[in-house]
Amino acid sequence: MGLDALFSPRAVAVVGASNRELTIGYRIIQNLLEFGYSGPIYPVNPKGGEIRGLPAYASILETPEPVDVAHIVIKNTYVPACIEDCAKKGVKAVIVNTAGFREIGDDGAALEDQLVALAAKTGIRVFGPNCQGIINTDPAVRAYCNFTFTRPVPGHISIVAQSGGVGEVIHQRIAELGVGVRKYASNGNGCDVSIPEILRHFGEDEQTKVIVVHIESLPDPRAFLEAATEVARVKPVLAMKVGRTAEGAKAVSSHTGGMMKQDTAIELVFDKAGIVAFRNIEELCQSAIGFASQPVPAGNRVGMIANTGGPAIIATDELIESGMVMPPLSKKTEAFLKEKLYPEASINNPIDVLATAGPEHFAAAISALIDDDGVDSVFLNFVTPFFVDTLGVAREIADANRRSTKPIVATVMTEKKGWAETLDVIRKAGVPTYDMPETGARVLASMGRYASMLKRPAETAVSFPEVDTDRVRSIVCGAVESGKPSLSAADGFDLLSCYGIGTAGYRSATDVDGCVAAANEIGYPVVLKVDAEAIIHKTDTGGVALGIDDPDSLREQAERMASQFANVSPAFLVQEQLEEGQEVIVGAKAVEGLGHVVMFGLGGIYVEVLKDVSFKITPVTGREAREMISSLRAHKLLMGVRGQTRADLGALEEIIQRVSQMLTENPEIRELDINPIFAFEDGARAADVRVLL
Amino acid sequence: MGLDALFSPRAVAVVGASNRELTIGYRIIQNLLEFGYSGPIYPVNPKGGEIRGLPAYASILETPEPVDVAHIVIKNTYVPACIEDCAKKGVKAVIVNTAGFREIGDDGAALEDQLVALAAKTGIRVFGPNCQGIINTDPAVRAYCNFTFTRPVPGHISIVAQSGGVGEVIHQRIAELGVGVRKYASNGNGCDVSIPEILRHFGEDEQTKVIVVHIESLPDPRAFLEAATEVARVKPVLAMKVGRTAEGAKAVSSHTGGMMKQDTAIELVFDKAGIVAFRNIEELCQSAIGFASQPVPAGNRVGMIANTGGPAIIATDELIESGMVMPPLSKKTEAFLKEKLYPEASINNPIDVLATAGPEHFAAAISALIDDDGVDSVFLNFVTPFFVDTLGVAREIADANRRSTKPIVATVMTEKKGWAETLDVIRKAGVPTYDMPETGARVLASMGRYASMLKRPAETAVSFPEVDTDRVRSIVCGAVESGKPSLSAADGFDLLSCYGIGTAGYRSATDVDGCVAAANEIGYPVVLKVDAEAIIHKTDTGGVALGIDDPDSLREQAERMASQFANVSPAFLVQEQLEEGQEVIVGAKAVEGLGHVVMFGLGGIYVEVLKDVSFKITPVTGREAREMISSLRAHKLLMGVRGQTRADLGALEEIIQRVSQMLTENPEIRELDINPIFAFEDGARAADVRVLL
Repeated sequence: MGLDALFSPRAVAVVGASNRELTIGYRIIQNLLEFGYSGPIYPVNPKGGEIRGLPAYASILETPEPVDVAHIVIKNTYVPACIEDCAKKGVKAVIVNTAGFREIGDDGAALEDQLVALAAKTGIRVFGPNCQGIINTDPAVRAYCNFTFTRPVPGHISIVAQSGGVGEVIHQRIAELGVGVRKYASNGNGCDVSIPEILRHFGEDEQTKVIVVHIESLPDPRAFLEAATEVARVKPVLAMKVGRTAEGAKAVSSHTGGMMKQDTAIELVFDKAGIVAFRNIEELCQSAIGFASQPVPAGNRVGMIANTGGPAIIATDELIESGMVMPPLSKKTEAFLKEKLYPEASINNPIDVLATAGPEHFAAAISALIDDDGVDSVFLNFVTPFFVDTLGVAREIADANRRSTKPIVATVMTEKKGWAETLDVIRKAGVPTYDMPETGARVLASMGRYASMLKRPAETAVSFPEVDTDRVRSIVCGAVESGKPSLSAADGFDLLSCYGIGTAGYRSATDVDGCVAAANEIGYPVVLKVDAEAIIHKTDTGGVALGIDDPDSLREQAERMASQFANVSPAFLVQEQLEEGQEVIVGAKAVEGLGHVVMFGLGGIYVEVLKDVSFKITPVTGREAREMISSLRAHKLLMGVRGQTRADLGALEEIIQRVSQMLTENPEIRELDINPIFAFEDGARAADVRVLL
Repeated sequence: MGLDALFSPRAVAVVGASNRELTIGYRIIQNLLEFGYSGPIYPVNPKGGEIRGLPAYASILETPEPVDVAHIVIKNTYVPACIEDCAKKGVKAVIVNTAGFREIGDDGAALEDQLVALAAKTGIRVFGPNCQGIINTDPAVRAYCNFTFTRPVPGHISIVAQSGGVGEVIHQRIAELGVGVRKYASNGNGCDVSIPEILRHFGEDEQTKVIVVHIESLPDPRAFLEAATEVARVKPVLAMKVGRTAEGAKAVSSHTGGMMKQDTAIELVFDKAGIVAFRNIEELCQSAIGFASQPVPAGNRVGMIANTGGPAIIATDELIESGMVMPPLSKKTEAFLKEKLYPEASINNPIDVLATAGPEHFAAAISALIDDDGVDSVFLNFVTPFFVDTLGVAREIADANRRSTKPIVATVMTEKKGWAETLDVIRKAGVPTYDMPETGARVLASMGRYASMLKRPAETAVSFPEVDTDRVRSIVCGAVESGKPSLSAADGFDLLSCYGIGTAGYRSATDVDGCVAAANEIGYPVVLKVDAEAIIHKTDTGGVALGIDDPDSLREQAERMASQFANVSPAFLVQEQLEEGQEVIVGAKAVEGLGHVVMFGLGGIYVEVLKDVSFKITPVTGREAREMISSLRAHKLLMGVRGQTRADLGALEEIIQRVSQMLTENPEIRELDINPIFAFEDGARAADVRVLL
């Protein structure tokens, strides 16, 4: 039954209830009482007596009626025994507010493991430990199972926060903005009830119109990705990107790893799931308010109305820079406005109705935009002049909002005390109302981002059929079983070939004669490489010879390498010397619990100096492969500008997808670096590959 | 005497005063009265009578005492006559609130020209027209000469806004945040009293600690640049960048022009002047509050204190991304905090004093940071737990602020009603207090930007001495006088040579034999170019031949060009074929009223595909030339990465400065394009130049 009992408990007990006001055991009871919780509240304290007028019970087992949720606020080491009692009592879920678990080190972690084991054994759900708790404002429930201080107002925004501090800041800010909340959860260490599970619960809750998520880390990124993907299809999920500048992951020897910031994976998870991501709590809260009261726009085309120019310019800047579009007005709209507005009014987008415009002018402008098929949303920038019937304007805005199926967002620039009634009429109508033009613009932009996410085709990654699975497994498992940290170059090329990824022609050889024989089969010119795991930087150490034109030169180079690297008894790889196309690179890195992050970039300077690379999480779909290419700053180089070879983009997209399939089917691959791949007008072929296991 | 009479008038008249409440003529009198203006107020209305209890005069000439400022709110066409009367009366400045001037087209512009002429003739200063007016909160003056609705509180922020709407939004927001304003001015069309002049007035006003500027365009950019540069050295000047996404300037044929966005010049003016620029009004207002109450930090190193982790992470992200630094704590600080804080507290930067920390812990952490030489500012992130003596914490913060010479900025995350006293103590102490960690972080970052601006050396552009001025003027004036739109290639190269800018060796020739003779002097290989103004795209049309190795080939090419371009009777330029170094480009474009904007970029793909270019305004100093190079994304390519030639950066810096001098001394140059310049390990030489006049 999921988390229903947790969020809608029939009765709540507080184990560790207290009469001392500055304790959590008192505060929770106070919050439940003052918020008007619909069920019975049972304080539990061995001393008995009364707490805030309620009889206290010596043990959870002595409480008279069934209890769905029990808060546990006693000393950390007593928690496991208490959970056993709760399970005996038939409690459905415990909220362990007590701290002193995984966050304090090994002893705490051991204690937390006991909680997990108890949950598994008894079926009781453990929320926390080291957490705030939950809130449900449903008028039939009114469960304030939390020790925070923001008195919630019922509404349509649900919040789940890993950090209780940030969760409370978000809740507080939304309350301050006069907007209601539906459900709230901050699950601290999250040992049992998880954020993905809470996300799904909010997703199924009809009264939740928008979900706000704050996470700092993803203990199970794949579970989060799956839950978020499902939920974001149904309702907007807004999330903060935090830890963006944390020290990078440990340096790794391949380009791929070196280029990827620690948080990249979370950012990529958000993108793949269709989450609307924010860099700023304030903006996240403001956007949540917009989503909670307005429909999702059909697209990113905004029609703007202003009664003074300055703020409209600021709003326009912000919209355009955030990826929105301000299309010209339709001829019909223009004609209509010419008739209805002052002759000096500016009939463009933004529409300037002039400072002297009254209710009828605003009404005309709003309804013209609602009826104009060229715009998806209406953005009002309203400064309240003292000589205008602003209350009348407000009523027209409210009225238009009632009829509109397009979102309406307003900036109302005013002196809030003097114009309280005007503001109130607009707000009560459900038009999200902001102080600053750029705030409203960014809210609309976030709605546009969600709209474009909803338009993505529901696409699954291609599974290319003709893979020689037996050969693949024998290469990968063979290497893993023999404890090798990486594949030989020959095995790497074999692996690519098994997945239908084009490579330069190649042959392995164990000695000089073998090299010559291989070159005869391939045809000159050839490239010669030593092939030994011990040699990581082949090029720097003389382990690669390019452009060998004849058997004598080949023999000479092979003999040199054989003697130079005699200590590691290397094999050789003889390779076709490819004509140079455009150099690109595909890399990948395994991320625990998630799969792989795949990287694409232009080779050489573009990767190393300009860091012009893009990332996606496996499995990479066709759309995502296209985005990986088109999102590069230098992607035009692949289109053949300035006399460069035009690259076969289709072939590159396919390589990315085939690599993705290879990674998904071979989770043993820790890092992959196909560098360079030469892209030609027709096709693309890998010239080097390195696979770490 | 500057603008003293305007901002501190001994008496104010309102010509066009009215008894109808919704008129500007009533509103100004109401504002003056309610704000408690210190001098007499004279309503002027031909009907006489009383207005808000004050006797109205039929004409400005009938007012009894000297009048310093007269508002004019009568019909636009009556304004000039009224100004003449005001001049007769001895009025020092008129504030023309009336609209219907330059903003309505030619008729209005003619009327406005009359105002300018009257100001020149009579010496009266004209503020406006089409404007709000001024405010001065000086307790000895209290001049609310404005029809807006925000009742000011005296403080230290002064505001000058081109858009009255935006000015009022800024004023309103600052008032809402409970912070005071010193002076306010919105001068509308600004026909006489200008924003640079107002800026200087605010700069000289001791009680103004920070200046906020809103501009949408710069009628006289050089005057603004000079005033802002002077003032920003003395106190922080904060400004909004607006119109960032306006349609680009008209396409021009050179790269330089094509690459420069319309607003680039304003952005560059801000940067050169040392203005702290913002993209967001809210952030600008929040930063103004910070600057108004706190000292400027010595640098960008922040020490942070938090009592819960989540907000500290968000604040850290924002600080680092904004260019701030969070250094490790000194050993002394660490030792001190180990003694004073809870054992579980995190003694790093950020310092986590823990949610249970009380006044003594906060006091210890703040004083440790104030005493730590490794940090320049202190950033508190304080969530108010109900179980802590938050009022005590607030008192410690206030106390520390009194002692500190470093700026202290605080994020206080709380329920504002319940914790009103706590908040009040912090605010009253003058600690700027924000709701969100990212807001506080950005305020500190803006202070850091100002601090680093103050550290710039006071440097003037180099004037290279050995310029052949006579030759220069003869080239440029000769071309201008003969009505040529551009210099010939030979003249272009001569001009560069006059300024000591290295070029490929070159000779002019008028016929085929001349070309051969020129090549003999230069030495093969050579480049041959047709030289005729009519041929703009020489390379595309066959007007350039590279790598000519011998006289026969030269003769053949010259004959071909002579016949191909026979219709324009071209001359020829024979040039030394340079060995290829790193390709760079220096361009420039004249900006009316400002000088030139100089561009630097890496040539070819980097300019055309990656748009990796930088800009500065002439005269370009040594520091600015260095910044132009180091701010390129690809600037590492010039340092010789990946086997590229290492470029002589000193030579490039010098070329940029010499070009700057050439532009400054030859304002006739409309556009310049030196492309390519080949940079070598030792020196750099121009291979092509185009000069439009």
